[in-house]
Amino acid sequence: MNHRIEVALAGERSYPIMLGKGLLGTPNLLEPYTRNQALVVTNAAVSGLFLDQVRRSLTSVDHLDVVEIGDGERFKTLDTYAAVLDALVDNRHNRTTTVVALGGGVVGDVAGFAAATYQRGVGLVQIPTTLLALVDSSVGGKTAVNHPAGKNLIGAFYQPHAVIADVGVLATLPEREFRAGFAEVIKYGIIADQPFFDWLESHIDEILDRDPACLIHAVRRSCEIKARVVADDEREQGRRMILNFGHTFGHAIEAVTGYEPILHGEAVAAGMVMAMDLSVRLGRSDDRDRHRVHRLIERSGLVTEALDIDEDALLDAMGMDKKVMDGRLRLIVCDGIGSVSVASDVPEQALRWAITHGR
Amino acid sequence: MNHRIEVALAGERSYPIMLGKGLLGTPNLLEPYTRNQALVVTNAAVSGLFLDQVRRSLTSVDHLDVVEIGDGERFKTLDTYAAVLDALVDNRHNRTTTVVALGGGVVGDVAGFAAATYQRGVGLVQIPTTLLALVDSSVGGKTAVNHPAGKNLIGAFYQPHAVIADVGVLATLPEREFRAGFAEVIKYGIIADQPFFDWLESHIDEILDRDPACLIHAVRRSCEIKARVVADDEREQGRRMILNFGHTFGHAIEAVTGYEPILHGEAVAAGMVMAMDLSVRLGRSDDRDRHRVHRLIERSGLVTEALDIDEDALLDAMGMDKKVMDGRLRLIVCDGIGSVSVASDVPEQALRWAITHGR
Repeated sequence: MNHRIEVALAGERSYPIMLGKGLLGTPNLLEPYTRNQALVVTNAAVSGLFLDQVRRSLTSVDHLDVVEIGDGERFKTLDTYAAVLDALVDNRHNRTTTVVALGGGVVGDVAGFAAATYQRGVGLVQIPTTLLALVDSSVGGKTAVNHPAGKNLIGAFYQPHAVIADVGVLATLPEREFRAGFAEVIKYGIIADQPFFDWLESHIDEILDRDPACLIHAVRRSCEIKARVVADDEREQGRRMILNFGHTFGHAIEAVTGYEPILHGEAVAAGMVMAMDLSVRLGRSDDRDRHRVHRLIERSGLVTEALDIDEDALLDAMGMDKKVMDGRLRLIVCDGIGSVSVASDVPEQALRWAITHGR
Repeated sequence: MNHRIEVALAGERSYPIMLGKGLLGTPNLLEPYTRNQALVVTNAAVSGLFLDQVRRSLTSVDHLDVVEIGDGERFKTLDTYAAVLDALVDNRHNRTTTVVALGGGVVGDVAGFAAATYQRGVGLVQIPTTLLALVDSSVGGKTAVNHPAGKNLIGAFYQPHAVIADVGVLATLPEREFRAGFAEVIKYGIIADQPFFDWLESHIDEILDRDPACLIHAVRRSCEIKARVVADDEREQGRRMILNFGHTFGHAIEAVTGYEPILHGEAVAAGMVMAMDLSVRLGRSDDRDRHRVHRLIERSGLVTEALDIDEDALLDAMGMDKKVMDGRLRLIVCDGIGSVSVASDVPEQALRWAITHGR
């Protein structure tokens, strides 16, 4: 039941995603990806659940340190990043060290940015512990911290040496976080794989029950799709933008609500509903596609109805999104489930319609 | 008299060094390397000398901002880096912006690191205004800030879109800084080009008089040599280590003296003397080579005699140098002028001899 997905990148920077159930704790699991030193970056909650297992997989490392950072998006800052760097310096880690990111997106992004920039780049292994991190942040090499003015404004593209994707970690994931992560899984079906979307529709109950075989399939297809898109466009010059389906809306929702009340996946789910509405309005998708997306998001327990957000504030926030090129807003629209493309110069009227229509 | 040196790197990341005298101020000089936005990073002293000229070369940019940082190595910090990022965010620069680093090594390193990590990488143009920056930091894509525990511990490899190497900037450079920068020029002769070393010996007086044609030749050969070495080994896995000749000693001298009393180039000059002494001791170079290096450094007005540094402190500091791999100290030694190689496991006795012999 274990899989190995190769993320093929230019040069020698390709790396494997080891996917399965019960991988963590396997002795010497990380031996091929580490040398004599390692720093595990995690948070208190995750540490209590998985650190012992990770230690067992790191017995080949002589010099192992652990640093815990705060739990939550508000800790994804330059200050937390500096604290991880201090842990590396204070424990005399040199260029041969490996940063092991054990946690969700915040841990992965901060630890990844520290690995990218400590001594201009040291080893990095990602061990995602949320569904969102398993299907999203573990592939693509994006690392970042937030600036008070916006999410992910500071960071680097930096590829890990390996990703350990153990769906066993999902057994203890809180229900709300699990469902939020599933929004990104749905996204992969919409943007690139209609049969996968069909499969998600017919297996949604098993997935929500966290059936391991179904989870492995869902994570596997998600990673494969993302890996293919990223391999085509490692530094987000073009095609990679399709991964942003629902995200320009979603990021704006997060910015306007101040990040705390809504999870990233919930914002993306709401954003995908808006993006489908926009796609119908622009004549790119039909009502049936729109309905299927709405319905799958609903069955996943994700919000589709009224968010109490000011329309003008949302439009303004969309204008500040990183994906704005040369001042022009470019949005990903759906051309029927399984296919998306970029729409430039979307009329403001259509945008307003999409933002309000789903409510 | 103008030259264009192509720094050839893998992928599409090659870039030109535009070399000449009086380039700054040429209208539209930077048009091919900028889009609609730019942020000039500089310091107060340099700004007063060259900012007007740089503005004239940036007339094609609609949205131009300037941020001044403190002058000196002690400002090469995460805090200064964060201030440059704030300037980008506060002035609403997007992914299409270009950071223009106008200054010496500190400006180039901090501005380069900000460009490397703002929105995961924006445009970068380097305009070095010291001899050291012209021949060293403008080629190689190293960006960094210091950590209290060591120099350049935080940073990224990031290539500029272009380097404007205008030797006209050297006319106003203080004598001591000019001579310190010349230490790196001497290094290129020692590590890779004996005829260039010969030429330096025979033109040292014109160079110290800052004859433009001689300066252009010296900068050109230096950049060509560094560009060739870097192209072979962009991320410092192997051959690039040869650029480090004299630097492991030099960095340790800077660390022990606390960076303030001695300039980087002066420390490198003292370090090259030690490295030549070590090379003789290990039987790699003969006394004549050693004498030629000593003599050229002396004629350049660079310190070769007694530095009041504790021998044990220096050895300890060398052990903390970034180039220490797997705990083993590797040093670059000279195999006769024009050729160097890596020596591993240098006996401590030989090291002590090299450190004390030159005094």
